[in-house]
Amino acid sequence: MMVGVLGAGQLGRMLALAGVPLGMRFRFFDPAPDSVAGHVGELVVGDWGDRATLERFARGLDACTLEFENVPVATHETVSATVPVRPGARALATSQDRVLEKSCFERLGIPTTLHRAVDTREELAEAVREVGVPCVLKSRRLGYDGKGQCVVRSDDDGALDEAWRAVAGRASIVEEFVPFDREVSIIGARGADGACVFYPLTWNTHAGGILRLSVAPAPGVSYKQQVDAENALRAVMEHLDYVGVLTIEFFERDRKLIANEMAPRVHNSGHWTIEGASCSQFENHLRAVCGLPLAVPFCRAAAMVNLIGSHAALPELARVPGARVHLYGKEIREGRKVGHVTLVGDDPVDVYAATRGLRAMANDPSLRTP
Amino acid sequence: MMVGVLGAGQLGRMLALAGVPLGMRFRFFDPAPDSVAGHVGELVVGDWGDRATLERFARGLDACTLEFENVPVATHETVSATVPVRPGARALATSQDRVLEKSCFERLGIPTTLHRAVDTREELAEAVREVGVPCVLKSRRLGYDGKGQCVVRSDDDGALDEAWRAVAGRASIVEEFVPFDREVSIIGARGADGACVFYPLTWNTHAGGILRLSVAPAPGVSYKQQVDAENALRAVMEHLDYVGVLTIEFFERDRKLIANEMAPRVHNSGHWTIEGASCSQFENHLRAVCGLPLAVPFCRAAAMVNLIGSHAALPELARVPGARVHLYGKEIREGRKVGHVTLVGDDPVDVYAATRGLRAMANDPSLRTP
Repeated sequence: MMVGVLGAGQLGRMLALAGVPLGMRFRFFDPAPDSVAGHVGELVVGDWGDRATLERFARGLDACTLEFENVPVATHETVSATVPVRPGARALATSQDRVLEKSCFERLGIPTTLHRAVDTREELAEAVREVGVPCVLKSRRLGYDGKGQCVVRSDDDGALDEAWRAVAGRASIVEEFVPFDREVSIIGARGADGACVFYPLTWNTHAGGILRLSVAPAPGVSYKQQVDAENALRAVMEHLDYVGVLTIEFFERDRKLIANEMAPRVHNSGHWTIEGASCSQFENHLRAVCGLPLAVPFCRAAAMVNLIGSHAALPELARVPGARVHLYGKEIREGRKVGHVTLVGDDPVDVYAATRGLRAMANDPSLRTP
Repeated sequence: MMVGVLGAGQLGRMLALAGVPLGMRFRFFDPAPDSVAGHVGELVVGDWGDRATLERFARGLDACTLEFENVPVATHETVSATVPVRPGARALATSQDRVLEKSCFERLGIPTTLHRAVDTREELAEAVREVGVPCVLKSRRLGYDGKGQCVVRSDDDGALDEAWRAVAGRASIVEEFVPFDREVSIIGARGADGACVFYPLTWNTHAGGILRLSVAPAPGVSYKQQVDAENALRAVMEHLDYVGVLTIEFFERDRKLIANEMAPRVHNSGHWTIEGASCSQFENHLRAVCGLPLAVPFCRAAAMVNLIGSHAALPELARVPGARVHLYGKEIREGRKVGHVTLVGDDPVDVYAATRGLRAMANDPSLRTP
């Protein structure tokens, strides 16, 4: 079975590492010729708008998916003319636009942040008045890892001008600033037959807008919270007739979950499932995309430390007892995700405690805050 | 880091799947252009004696190893002129020759089978008289999976003629027939610094001379047996100045271990370590070969069912709860290892019991014997 993947970064690479044992082979499409998934499959290089190259990529594929949520919808449609691409274009379009995304949550009765769409500088002023300060201004599209957003602390003209410049005057969204207790995410998969499977809620810690640490199951999470999260994710997947892995990130405040955003793909907060679950998010995504039965994952406790920019060398990481090291083969650059390390155990609090040395090796800045 | 592997079958493929997450890339050498490790790395095709192609293969490698124990020693030496090949030529030569292998065990005080080297039809008669019947005649070289051997049940001329034909008159060895209770194997790795790590003794069941099922830890194994096995393996690795993973297969009789043979590579009876250990045999082999620190494996109970020849289709295998399916991408042929499935749990007897359905899907003939 030849599986196509739009995007060829580390997520594509990990998809291939999960799919090759199932007898799958992989072909990736990416504009960057040095994309790291090319180490474990065929790499077709082209621009997202290059129809001829996309058609060549699609020819002969048995199934196709994506590992990058900003694949243009037109690209998805070009490839879909030759081979079904899962998840579908509607899911992709919804998750690419923060306003559509929030509307989807609202329509399904999933608690989310108060927000207003903003297209002009005038609308910005009105939206900030309605939502109140502090609030967050984010561009509607192409935001990730904290890019293209800023906190608005005052509704005076100077503050609004500055915020408007931060989003470069693009179509945006104003959201209430949620003083959350922590962030958690849920990952699940839905098959073409409508069957769903879920992983336990995962606690995520960010620094500088980038995920640094995930712990699963999120310590202290209640059964009700897990069920609420699964119901929210199932509702979104059914609404979008979704096939594949979908992630929802929540703010947790006073033990309530407030949906923040979704990602129509395998997710950094689920990398722990490679070793911590009997079937990883990557394998369940491929099972869904290829029409295989999904696997209910049996999970252990796990913690994952991201390697962002410079980090300890491989021999040092490899020496940590039980450490499962993943280096993506990417050149090290400031702020770039270049790998992760997972620890697995019986209790999430113990496993979390055991990450301290690894977080120091990863230069996690949150270790430096009091 | 570019790692070369002599041989490009499923063992090479699983080495790559273990090494890519450590940031390694792979180049394989194999005479067969359809070798399945080529799906996850570069494949250089050439005969084992093709010096020019071997030199091209070796150029630019940072480390090199082998996944096939019958790589000719001359091939090893050709590649070694450019890049160190681990394990070394002496270990390879020893394990390729059943007489050298048994002598190595004897010299190190490791209990092994009574045996005699046989070069001629006359020596065969003498050896069978000395060892007694029933005994086993095996060619000294190039035997695996029960090929090139036969049981000698009588020392009359007809029986000896028949046996001599079975080994095609090649240099051979006569070994006592051990009415063993079961077969177990130990896998360990030795680093370039001399550090060793070990996996628990694994119980192996064969049918038709081919491994069908492995269960780890071998149920009912004593602490003394584990220590004896580790000491034997350590002694061999030190004697051969071995670097990498080495396997010794033992007959177990009356709770005593009798060394049968060694394999200078990752081994089918250790495939369960992919999911059942915190660091698999494949990763520890690569750590050793690449000069990284070895990982002491934290292990769970596991059972592995080999898929030999025809087997249930992927969707059926994928539906078994907890099943970790590995298909090698090989064309299905009678008697050919084309995949395996692993189950992991807390108790080896429970996990073994849970394999029954999978063994039926794998057409394990031992299920049909009373």
